Amino acid sequence: MSKKTTIYDIAKELNITAATVSRALNNNPKISAKTKELVFETAKKMHYEQNKLALALKSGKSFNVGVIVPRIDSNFFSSVIRGIEEELYPEGYHVIICQTHDQQELEIKNINSLLNAQVDGVLMSVSNANIEKLDGFKSLLKKNVPLIFFDRKKNIKNVSTITIDDYKGAYDATKHLIDQGCKRIAHLSNNRKLEIFKNRYLGYKQAIIDSGLTFDENLVVESFSKVLEGRKQTKLFLEMDNRPDAIFSSSDFTALGAIQEITSYGLRIPEDISVVGFSNEPFTKFMELSITSVDQSPREMGRIAAQIFLEEVNNDAKVKSEKHVVLSPELKIRKSSQKF
Amino acid sequence: MSKKTTIYDIAKELNITAATVSRALNNNPKISAKTKELVFETAKKMHYEQNKLALALKSGKSFNVGVIVPRIDSNFFSSVIRGIEEELYPEGYHVIICQTHDQQELEIKNINSLLNAQVDGVLMSVSNANIEKLDGFKSLLKKNVPLIFFDRKKNIKNVSTITIDDYKGAYDATKHLIDQGCKRIAHLSNNRKLEIFKNRYLGYKQAIIDSGLTFDENLVVESFSKVLEGRKQTKLFLEMDNRPDAIFSSSDFTALGAIQEITSYGLRIPEDISVVGFSNEPFTKFMELSITSVDQSPREMGRIAAQIFLEEVNNDAKVKSEKHVVLSPELKIRKSSQKF
Repeated sequence: MSKKTTIYDIAKELNITAATVSRALNNNPKISAKTKELVFETAKKMHYEQNKLALALKSGKSFNVGVIVPRIDSNFFSSVIRGIEEELYPEGYHVIICQTHDQQELEIKNINSLLNAQVDGVLMSVSNANIEKLDGFKSLLKKNVPLIFFDRKKNIKNVSTITIDDYKGAYDATKHLIDQGCKRIAHLSNNRKLEIFKNRYLGYKQAIIDSGLTFDENLVVESFSKVLEGRKQTKLFLEMDNRPDAIFSSSDFTALGAIQEITSYGLRIPEDISVVGFSNEPFTKFMELSITSVDQSPREMGRIAAQIFLEEVNNDAKVKSEKHVVLSPELKIRKSSQKF
Repeated sequence: MSKKTTIYDIAKELNITAATVSRALNNNPKISAKTKELVFETAKKMHYEQNKLALALKSGKSFNVGVIVPRIDSNFFSSVIRGIEEELYPEGYHVIICQTHDQQELEIKNINSLLNAQVDGVLMSVSNANIEKLDGFKSLLKKNVPLIFFDRKKNIKNVSTITIDDYKGAYDATKHLIDQGCKRIAHLSNNRKLEIFKNRYLGYKQAIIDSGLTFDENLVVESFSKVLEGRKQTKLFLEMDNRPDAIFSSSDFTALGAIQEITSYGLRIPEDISVVGFSNEPFTKFMELSITSVDQSPREMGRIAAQIFLEEVNNDAKVKSEKHVVLSPELKIRKSSQKF
């Protein structure tokens, strides 16, 4: 790769200082018209394009916004991103995406890369891995780059968040299973150090208690949001002496794994075991045995996250404030849990 | 948002020139140790972090690589990106993703945003929309930023490509349907100005001709790669007097739409109508009526695209060369087409 032309190359070519080239390109009045013309012609000849970024270094604006998500191949996150784009494009902003694969190391690298790319803000859903540590965020906060968390958040002063009411989503889902006659409802949870999974667990637990059923901690397991993990954990449930008659999963992917495992045991869904997922991924609707799931309005979430960013970036006030928006989820009842 | 601290702010604070600040930060020997210390201390106090990007402006390296795809919410593209990341992370590169939604305007904006973010290269699958125009690419090529096309490409001198043999994928898929006894095979195509769809069409056509069946242009329609589009076009096939006994779709999403429409007519798959898709999206395997599809080894494609980038970026030779890698696709035979 040949190097990009820089102001230093132009300076060398013209035997003047880089500072003079820079001033000429920035139309500094101290530079003569003749020099400016010479610099512009040389810059053009050498395919130098005055970089918006170099200007950004001075103005503090690049009109690029960074979005960091655990994974792009989930409909939930790609829909949030769509919502963000819909809101930001008309305002002249461009969206750059990075994924963390739930690895803390990548999360920090993402933040640094986006800072180096001079983004005007970062909209982010944190990874499973980086729950208690805040180090990675310090560089962002120090630089006064607006940071907004969506869905998976950390509690940081002055940082706005947009989440859904996971507690309510889980409560409604579990209540629905109880209304369908289920009495022993297992829960496929995930890392409960992450608030969303903790709240789904708490909503599930409270619905059981409120209905007068016995809450059994043995029916709660943690697993990653993967189809195969769902199969593995469900196998353990099915091997129990007193196996559950329903599974409420904190993820559609583990719910799909549960369905595959239950079917491989020759058991019927929902007659023998009912299954409910979380996120309303499109496949839950496509499947012949469609899966009941909790819709999280991801597009709306993205739009609101973007609106909060715009408010922050356009706010010149020195006083900082934070905003916390909580969306209400909607249960989509389908074949995997509807007995009548 | 308060402005980011720049060398100009530090210069003002210390009442010295920005050039001096810059030289001090870059450890220029012409600057005294005392001044350097003063500049470093002030920079630290003002939360200035010497930007890797500012250095990149000089060195021509940011270690960010841009990836542009039509959409992130397809398993094919997210798997290619995974492959690119797997290959580039160990080399110290970071991956920034943009999506075009098949809109030409966004494609050009993506390129410009990535250039402004000082990426060291762009790995890209072109949008449907921007097939004949090359304007958007000129800025990239002029700046000598390596450009590599994967899957959907344009033919540009000195630009390397990695694709799969779409012709063979389509030929094999169609041949399989013929081997299963299908005689009137329809084709859900897409914009054939794009080479991948043209080649799938040609492979399909040739397999029919080679098998001595009659090729009927009326059985070929173009549609976008969306479930509902697949339903709409399939409805037209089903309303024909002499309806097809198989559908080969250039997309898994339209194949899914075809299946939904065929089922809604009370017809059986594969007995009445067989269906084959293209891309091997995970849902094709998950579905109870699993869908036969053509696997494109997306992860491998991503890894190879990244390897080509690394070769180009590490090549100091003035002589440019281009590389064209073509992967061989693999037909995954499943329930939607397997009669015996």
